[in-house]
Amino acid sequence: MTKDATGIPGFEIRSTTEADAPLILTLIKELAEYERLSDEVVATEESLIESLFGERPSAEVVIGELDGAPIGYALYFHNYSTFVGRAGMYLEDIYVRPEYRGRGFGKALLVYVARQARARGCRRLEWAVLDWNTPSIEFYKGLGAVAMDEWTVFRMTGEALERLAG
Amino acid sequence: MTKDATGIPGFEIRSTTEADAPLILTLIKELAEYERLSDEVVATEESLIESLFGERPSAEVVIGELDGAPIGYALYFHNYSTFVGRAGMYLEDIYVRPEYRGRGFGKALLVYVARQARARGCRRLEWAVLDWNTPSIEFYKGLGAVAMDEWTVFRMTGEALERLAG
Repeated sequence: MTKDATGIPGFEIRSTTEADAPLILTLIKELAEYERLSDEVVATEESLIESLFGERPSAEVVIGELDGAPIGYALYFHNYSTFVGRAGMYLEDIYVRPEYRGRGFGKALLVYVARQARARGCRRLEWAVLDWNTPSIEFYKGLGAVAMDEWTVFRMTGEALERLAG
Repeated sequence: MTKDATGIPGFEIRSTTEADAPLILTLIKELAEYERLSDEVVATEESLIESLFGERPSAEVVIGELDGAPIGYALYFHNYSTFVGRAGMYLEDIYVRPEYRGRGFGKALLVYVARQARARGCRRLEWAVLDWNTPSIEFYKGLGAVAMDEWTVFRMTGEALERLAG
């Protein structure tokens, strides 16, 4: 396990292991509740262990701890841009527990991921935000992030995906 | 190299090697021109070889060939959903040369990627579409894909990313 200081007294960002799966699942469910998407969560401790801590991890997770207590997390993975011709970084989740917001912990998590991106030669850091989440949108724009307003993500799941695969 | 029949006479989908880098770059540039985003292309043959055919490939590319001639491609990689608790599939690019459109080649490429997704246990296939690209949007909706209208992707690059990483 690695621990990174963040410049905020008592706040550290640490890597995770299989033993963190219950904590990660708890935080994922809290984020889903905040996003009003709880019905979409089908992840289990087992699926997280297999996909995040197995032979070929599909993403990386770090936990933010204040005085040793978990207060948030970030989960990210590499995406790819053909126009750039190299891998970028995609931030799937960034979350700080409600009672700890407004104190710079979210930004510290974002800075951590930006440093990972830079260290690996990524030229883009991307993430998706819900349109009603005005505080986050203002925050991200203030940091110089650009809203890709002209693009819409399409998603195929379940029966439609089965039907297409044939 | 593997070759997959598609059900369309003469049309096959094949895997790629380092030797395909010049062709892949040509097709990427054609797609960028169609998307009116040519100024965003900084990829080179070298960066494609390193990122797609090096020790740890960041994405996979297949070429669609009609009677042995390349007429399109698809590039995809795994993303991750914490709510699903496992890897999904993200289709970064799908392209058919203009003179070959309307004959089912694009759908055949999409079916190929959907089969890859299913074979690997992915429960989501996702991709992004430009809002003015009405023919594609109608096509995807007809297949049962859902527009994630309530989400906007944010992107941080260049100086903003450097500044954030500190």
